[in-house]
Amino acid sequence: MKKIAMLGSGFIARFYADSLQGYRNKDKITSIYSRSEDSVKKFANDYNVSHSTCNMEESIAHDDVDIVCVALPNFLHEEAVMLCCKHKKAVMITKPLGRNSAEAKRMLEAVEQAGIFNGYLEDLVYAPKFLKAFESVKNGALGRILWAKSRETHPGPHSEWFWNIEQAGGGCMLDLGCHCIEITRSYIGKDIKPVEVMCWADTQVKPIDAEDHAIALIKYENGSIAQFEVSWTFRGGLDLRDEVMGTEGTIWVNNFLRTGFEMFTTGKAAEYVSEKAESNSGWLFPVGDELNELGYNHMFMDMLDSLENNVPPKETFYDGYVVNSVIDAAYRSAKSKLWEPVTLDIWRGQEGVGKSTEPDEYDADHYLIKEEVTHYGAKKVILKNKTSGKIVEKTL
Amino acid sequence: MKKIAMLGSGFIARFYADSLQGYRNKDKITSIYSRSEDSVKKFANDYNVSHSTCNMEESIAHDDVDIVCVALPNFLHEEAVMLCCKHKKAVMITKPLGRNSAEAKRMLEAVEQAGIFNGYLEDLVYAPKFLKAFESVKNGALGRILWAKSRETHPGPHSEWFWNIEQAGGGCMLDLGCHCIEITRSYIGKDIKPVEVMCWADTQVKPIDAEDHAIALIKYENGSIAQFEVSWTFRGGLDLRDEVMGTEGTIWVNNFLRTGFEMFTTGKAAEYVSEKAESNSGWLFPVGDELNELGYNHMFMDMLDSLENNVPPKETFYDGYVVNSVIDAAYRSAKSKLWEPVTLDIWRGQEGVGKSTEPDEYDADHYLIKEEVTHYGAKKVILKNKTSGKIVEKTL
Amino acid sequence: MKKIAMLGSGFIARFYADSLQGYRNKDKITSIYSRSEDSVKKFANDYNVSHSTCNMEESIAHDDVDIVCVALPNFLHEEAVMLCCKHKKAVMITKPLGRNSAEAKRMLEAVEQAGIFNGYLEDLVYAPKFLKAFESVKNGALGRILWAKSRETHPGPHSEWFWNIEQAGGGCMLDLGCHCIEITRSYIGKDIKPVEVMCWADTQVKPIDAEDHAIALIKYENGSIAQFEVSWTFRGGLDLRDEVMGTEGTIWVNNFLRTGFEMFTTGKAAEYVSEKAESNSGWLFPVGDELNELGYNHMFMDMLDSLENNVPPKETFYDGYVVNSVIDAAYRSAKSKLWEPVTLDIWRGQEGVGKSTEPDEYDADHYLIKEEVTHYGAKKVILKNKTSGKIVEKTL
Amino acid sequence: MKKIAMLGSGFIARFYADSLQGYRNKDKITSIYSRSEDSVKKFANDYNVSHSTCNMEESIAHDDVDIVCVALPNFLHEEAVMLCCKHKKAVMITKPLGRNSAEAKRMLEAVEQAGIFNGYLEDLVYAPKFLKAFESVKNGALGRILWAKSRETHPGPHSEWFWNIEQAGGGCMLDLGCHCIEITRSYIGKDIKPVEVMCWADTQVKPIDAEDHAIALIKYENGSIAQFEVSWTFRGGLDLRDEVMGTEGTIWVNNFLRTGFEMFTTGKAAEYVSEKAESNSGWLFPVGDELNELGYNHMFMDMLDSLENNVPPKETFYDGYVVNSVIDAAYRSAKSKLWEPVTLDIWRGQEGVGKSTEPDEYDADHYLIKEEVTHYGAKKVILKNKTSGKIVEKTL
Repeated sequence: MKKIAMLGSGFIARFYADSLQGYRNKDKITSIYSRSEDSVKKFANDYNVSHSTCNMEESIAHDDVDIVCVALPNFLHEEAVMLCCKHKKAVMITKPLGRNSAEAKRMLEAVEQAGIFNGYLEDLVYAPKFLKAFESVKNGALGRILWAKSRETHPGPHSEWFWNIEQAGGGCMLDLGCHCIEITRSYIGKDIKPVEVMCWADTQVKPIDAEDHAIALIKYENGSIAQFEVSWTFRGGLDLRDEVMGTEGTIWVNNFLRTGFEMFTTGKAAEYVSEKAESNSGWLFPVGDELNELGYNHMFMDMLDSLENNVPPKETFYDGYVVNSVIDAAYRSAKSKLWEPVTLDIWRGQEGVGKSTEPDEYDADHYLIKEEVTHYGAKKVILKNKTSGKIVEKTL
Repeated sequence: MKKIAMLGSGFIARFYADSLQGYRNKDKITSIYSRSEDSVKKFANDYNVSHSTCNMEESIAHDDVDIVCVALPNFLHEEAVMLCCKHKKAVMITKPLGRNSAEAKRMLEAVEQAGIFNGYLEDLVYAPKFLKAFESVKNGALGRILWAKSRETHPGPHSEWFWNIEQAGGGCMLDLGCHCIEITRSYIGKDIKPVEVMCWADTQVKPIDAEDHAIALIKYENGSIAQFEVSWTFRGGLDLRDEVMGTEGTIWVNNFLRTGFEMFTTGKAAEYVSEKAESNSGWLFPVGDELNELGYNHMFMDMLDSLENNVPPKETFYDGYVVNSVIDAAYRSAKSKLWEPVTLDIWRGQEGVGKSTEPDEYDADHYLIKEEVTHYGAKKVILKNKTSGKIVEKTL
Repeated sequence: MKKIAMLGSGFIARFYADSLQGYRNKDKITSIYSRSEDSVKKFANDYNVSHSTCNMEESIAHDDVDIVCVALPNFLHEEAVMLCCKHKKAVMITKPLGRNSAEAKRMLEAVEQAGIFNGYLEDLVYAPKFLKAFESVKNGALGRILWAKSRETHPGPHSEWFWNIEQAGGGCMLDLGCHCIEITRSYIGKDIKPVEVMCWADTQVKPIDAEDHAIALIKYENGSIAQFEVSWTFRGGLDLRDEVMGTEGTIWVNNFLRTGFEMFTTGKAAEYVSEKAESNSGWLFPVGDELNELGYNHMFMDMLDSLENNVPPKETFYDGYVVNSVIDAAYRSAKSKLWEPVTLDIWRGQEGVGKSTEPDEYDADHYLIKEEVTHYGAKKVILKNKTSGKIVEKTL
Repeated sequence: MKKIAMLGSGFIARFYADSLQGYRNKDKITSIYSRSEDSVKKFANDYNVSHSTCNMEESIAHDDVDIVCVALPNFLHEEAVMLCCKHKKAVMITKPLGRNSAEAKRMLEAVEQAGIFNGYLEDLVYAPKFLKAFESVKNGALGRILWAKSRETHPGPHSEWFWNIEQAGGGCMLDLGCHCIEITRSYIGKDIKPVEVMCWADTQVKPIDAEDHAIALIKYENGSIAQFEVSWTFRGGLDLRDEVMGTEGTIWVNNFLRTGFEMFTTGKAAEYVSEKAESNSGWLFPVGDELNELGYNHMFMDMLDSLENNVPPKETFYDGYVVNSVIDAAYRSAKSKLWEPVTLDIWRGQEGVGKSTEPDEYDADHYLIKEEVTHYGAKKVILKNKTSGKIVEKTL
């Protein structure tokens, strides 16, 4: 059983609390901090939290707290983390870790120097579909991974601070891209180095300073390509899809808008249907169990089990730092219009991994380009002569 | 925190244990009973259970047990339940409750006389999609419910006793129909009486005495119709779909084969992909989190929360009894080829609910039959004169 | 090149005309008949038809007409067909053939006696997906067919006469069931005799005399089961789905509401989106090419090619008669609540086809019930001893 | 009725012929040219073509030919087109027009100078789903278009020449990207100028000189972004999907792998199922009517109707030239790693279209950033002060 201090009482803090105290869980939120007195009271009441405060340090330092869960706006992350270091409290933090790589690096170095447990709450690499897909990829079901794409788009976040570039540190790329980067990085291999990024970003619709739409390609040292598509201007709900291409297979995951649950209603009932749904009539696509589908349950299980077992969780501040570094490169690229290198002062994966080149052999003299059954039933192969390079077709 | 005796160590007992001891759950299986010594040892080891025995009564009576979870073949249900009554132990039991209504009734009367907590483990009315769909239905999003269909078909169960009509009590209709009946009954209203059943059942493929394919219609007192389609001969995996039609809307739920997770693999990896999947190459449709998708987590939460709060769970032995009574009528109908009445000696819902008849009024003189926008942009209505009965078309 | 007289100028006549004169088609509607002068003029103008009349016989008898296309309300079918016989004109007729089996039989006998080409315009067995699915079934991809279901439901037809039981001859069962019966009959085998029908039908919503919702099971001589689900009370659009189960496979066809075309719109544009769509905002599911998706193009190709080649088309008045006979049995069953025999005075398929019984053999002593890979990777078989009947499990 | 000379007798020529002579079409292939004598004979026989030859000019110049259909490998396009110019024969040509922009430009200038009808056979902008989606976009259902993505990936083309960079002119980007470019350009507006391209391309799997995987972003003058994803290394079949995002809506089109037709088979039948399907057992996703779904029927209807009516078709050599120019920029970008300008010596659309900037107004003092219903039922708006730029949240 673990006792948790929750920092923050907004949308995401409530999602976290629903998960942490969900099912028959043994864990308990024992302290709640928020900047607003009203909000802190409401949260304490709703989640039955014994200690509540508008003083962040008081919550962190509280005796009855094993681990601090940072669910604050981005611009308050560093302050919260530094206080955890000061009080040697285990910490897990919502995404993104920092507003930029420098901030993330300071937090990473601080928690490691303090020797405290640190978890990075990237929920989408704990989504049940991801976990199962990842296992298949790891087991080789897709062969060598060529490309991994993650898309997260919706009509925009819920709280005002997201739209303020100072407080948020960026726009949809920071808010949503961090998910996509870690998802695709996981499929490609977290020990493979991301080397450069090409990014397009624009403010196409919203009257804000940050970007509301961005697309990027991330090149990894082994030649694999990651891609993200993020937007705050998408119409139709929360679109959360991943795709992976390997030499032996394909994965398509739809986490939200098409999960086998479809409802048509003329609109007689008008309650909350699903996160970021845009309507409550017509065809609707609710999600059965948002907390589980979005990975919260499996994420906190890993975090708290790891804390108990004294091992690092699957996602640590180090991962958050890598993600922030990729995002930084993306922002640079959106401005420079160049492929920008990913700067990683701290890198703990493999170095110098080359591009895989192993064409399929057909026979001693030929590589196999393609084998197929044609329209007319015949089986044929397209071959390349190893020495002459000549390409020939052969009907078998 | 609750301590559980698990009776049975097969496929379903393991699914239950994975759920009961999953996530950060506080509950614990403290005793395991199985008929086979090998199996009991393996289970105790896998799930870290302190007490194990091949004597059913010993497990039930064990001091360190708050509630007994019956995960045994159908023909052992009554024996287990009677022992729980004898030792005044709370009990929750896998579906179906009995092999027939008479058995179910004896168990229902026994637990109520003994005054013990009794839960009926119909997991699919706890499936997250069901829970959300049900809430929408309850809130009126679909208007008056006209029809609810549930389909569960797959290539056949895992253990030999299912295929033995004596031990199982029936075929796919008892095994799978029990789910479908409770799902559709819930949508229509658990207080609405099922009055008669028409069923077709046949042994089309398997060399067994019981039916391997069955379809039935269940008429409720308010004129609503439930339908189930069950089979052990379906090819392609586990097909688990529900559909609901109401005057104001429609719900389609796919719990298993199409949940937004699609994988193609040439077959380089050959591990277990998903319950009852038939292949491990080509296009596969795994489920992210089977335990959650199938309702186990929410079911046990309701069971153990209810036990703690001293209230009956959502599904009790009474529900199991109603389901068995509907199944009995279905078996009679399959033989007699008649609509057979559902015999319910015990009925705790509404009585004498008439069929709803409230045609939409268009104006003082007309009922509205239909309103539509035609191919050519015009809006028109089809009306029925209240007195003459004449049907007319009017372009607006 | 064929010259066509179109009888009728309503919704379906226009669909037919769009198809007959679509693409680069060589055929031409040369005469149009309708009861309404306005309507006949508009049609003649829209489709560039040289001869138009409010006298049915005049259109049929017109010199410049090779074939008559009957697109009239059900109660006018017999009159039209008899005039075609009188003038020895080839005829193709919309579905259903008659309002009942007796009417259908009179028409069948008349066209055969007159020796004229006769086609039954059951478009859905010409739908491209059906054609391809049917070919797979015929080639054995699904093994022995166990069950075929067809569902057609929508919020109700477009013209007033459908809602008038005298003019239509029935309700949704006649209007939509005729499609479903011919689809499922085709999958099971058009030479296999439908023997009995169990049907539930009710008027659940609309203020009409006919049924607005019906479900039926049709038993074939070989033990296969067909099922139809039809309704005029469905909300959400036009639901047109078929399912087939065989010993070796499964087919799921969705002809309309989910065909890989999804659109979300806030509703800025409000044009006609798709047949029987209920809305023009929110998530919409248009169909790319309704005429083609619904089978019209392939149907008329078969009709007119057959006429040219002097062979009967795939669907003739005989098929229409069989369908009407099944519907008659369904209506009788809905009233009597019994399985009602299908009365077929005229039957041209096989007689006395028995139920297939060929259990899979495992070895000399055992039948195979099931083979599977378990949760834990082991391969096991469930067998039945041929002589003792005992069922055993064997892990390999 | 039009008489067609078909140049080429391979895969695509046969698809074209099936469409041109399909349904009840009045048109006829009257001459067939192919380099191989065997192939020309087989084609003439299969499609009942009266004149066949291995001399290209002979076919083009043939008296009985109204229009020439070029279905030859890319490296033979220019020769064929020049001969059509010489003989003043109307011409329609398969995609891409040229191997590069220079070749395309020469052909465009030649046909215009010769004054002959010229059609560019970009079938996918004639696919029925595209046509309907495009109409909705044109009618404003999606508002202002922000982004259009088209993806075409499969396991590689059928004929050897595709894999030969000399003969093909490029890899998957030329072969498949040409489709994607014209699709997305159509959604954004064919009169809007594509200005620059960023492209990643690599040879990840196949032993060839050209790229087998490429992704590109194309920026249009109005700030809209097009994206293509193309590959010859995709596993799982032919993946053909488009997505469009607008300020008011979203479109998702799946042209091939998920069109509402799903089949599971254990593999007892082993015929051709669908273009580029990789298997004939397990779950398969055939297409009902490939010719129609892929746009061939509507494309040839437009081509031949336009020829008859003496108007240009929807897609002309000019469009082919624009597409080739975008591809050229993509190839340059893949090498230079820079955003490369699209060079268009010939441009017939709008010039100097600026980026649209029209933030939604909330009231006199504020822009609306977002309006939503929260988790807890409240309606709130997020606003930006027009003068101070301050972002505030307001619960209504």
